[in-house]
Amino acid sequence: MPRYFLTLEYDGSGFCGWQKQANGLAVQAVVETAVERLCRQPRPVQAAGRTDAGVHALGQVAHVDLPKDYGESKVQDALNHHLRPHPVAVLAARRVPADAHARFDAIGRAYLYRIRNRRPPLTLEAGRAWQVPAALDAAAMADAAARLVGRHDFSSFRAAECQAPSPVKTLDRLTVRRTADLVEIEAVARSFLHHQVRNIVGTLILVGKGAWSVADVPAALAAKRRSAAGPTAPAAGLYLTRVDYALTCPSPDAGPACRRAAG
Amino acid sequence: MPRYFLTLEYDGSGFCGWQKQANGLAVQAVVETAVERLCRQPRPVQAAGRTDAGVHALGQVAHVDLPKDYGESKVQDALNHHLRPHPVAVLAARRVPADAHARFDAIGRAYLYRIRNRRPPLTLEAGRAWQVPAALDAAAMADAAARLVGRHDFSSFRAAECQAPSPVKTLDRLTVRRTADLVEIEAVARSFLHHQVRNIVGTLILVGKGAWSVADVPAALAAKRRSAAGPTAPAAGLYLTRVDYALTCPSPDAGPACRRAAG
Repeated sequence: MPRYFLTLEYDGSGFCGWQKQANGLAVQAVVETAVERLCRQPRPVQAAGRTDAGVHALGQVAHVDLPKDYGESKVQDALNHHLRPHPVAVLAARRVPADAHARFDAIGRAYLYRIRNRRPPLTLEAGRAWQVPAALDAAAMADAAARLVGRHDFSSFRAAECQAPSPVKTLDRLTVRRTADLVEIEAVARSFLHHQVRNIVGTLILVGKGAWSVADVPAALAAKRRSAAGPTAPAAGLYLTRVDYALTCPSPDAGPACRRAAG
Repeated sequence: MPRYFLTLEYDGSGFCGWQKQANGLAVQAVVETAVERLCRQPRPVQAAGRTDAGVHALGQVAHVDLPKDYGESKVQDALNHHLRPHPVAVLAARRVPADAHARFDAIGRAYLYRIRNRRPPLTLEAGRAWQVPAALDAAAMADAAARLVGRHDFSSFRAAECQAPSPVKTLDRLTVRRTADLVEIEAVARSFLHHQVRNIVGTLILVGKGAWSVADVPAALAAKRRSAAGPTAPAAGLYLTRVDYALTCPSPDAGPACRRAAG
């Protein structure tokens, strides 16, 4: 059966997260229903990352095996048709080798965390950013962020429910950038622990507010205890922006994943 | 009674527009209710521009007379408190002279129209941009836009219900800019006719799609008939971004309007 990688964008606000659960509507369920409407049989859809409730995606990737080869364009358009009216869209559909795996073959994941540093509540961005009224020193946050880059035991930033076999991860990139009242934090790694980005953001905010010094952040990391770091930042500010792969693509219309591998 | 200018941001999606009407919830009604909760008496609120249903604001300005001088900071915070949970926020509250008028003293208004030029439906930006699937030539749109700048009879771009005394307006700025799949159109004038920006955008889209040539746009303008121009673009893509004034401000903490006049 031809395997496809779907690049997905969604507004996570109304969902219980990516993964199907007993209660609540999951993005996975919505995508699987759309796939079933297209090919008239149930097909499981597996994603690169199981985003939590309220977390958004600009470039989630999931794979699915379809009973026949409809063509990339038709798969994209038909799924988008069947996804309506849910706020989930297929940005790209790409044929990939039959053993390509959205989760296990991912060699990089990028997240963006958006903060609006302002006193008034959010209107157009409600549910799409974290509103922080206290003035934030983004330069200090950037300094602290740089201290977390590299290979570390991230136990201090790991949710209790995290199922990863090891707390050791390599954080390839962690940047903080301010544009007017928008503070954006970008995090890139091969993989992340559960709540790792949100726990890092919740800790950097303490530095931004001046409650913590820059040096307190590597100290919290070294403590290897969740209670040593800051609180978990709200889900609404978090976006899974990109998943990278190094695949050999069978399709002549090579997808972004394959172009990246080739480039 | 001390007069205040309120700079307002709102998500217009759920509103029947700025102005109070027999049916539907108006932004004006929501702001007036918040003002009444603050000062325990009804006070009329008058805006610079009566945005239509579904049109957003990043910098609408409205004036209101309060029974006493609470101070700018308190007016802003108290109104934001009373505006919850509506997607309307006061970005600034400024004391202005008692005869300053949000509508009649405005010397410039700026609108932004946001288009997502892509095939997949919108998710996070649903209701916040116009999704146009057909490939748009933004450079041609920019050329056509330049032909509309200046003082003209804009009858071809004027809604039938428009109450302006004259169809002659001076368009100071009309730019088209593409960033990846985002096409942004900015329009600046002292004042606009009803639906003028949306009718201009609906016409520029015809050029972008190649259905019209650049020269067809000045020809449509010269025809001075609404039927000579393109359709009205959807409300969801339109944002009132800024209103400019030239006021002498009594407040030491001079607002953006006054800074602009001074600068």
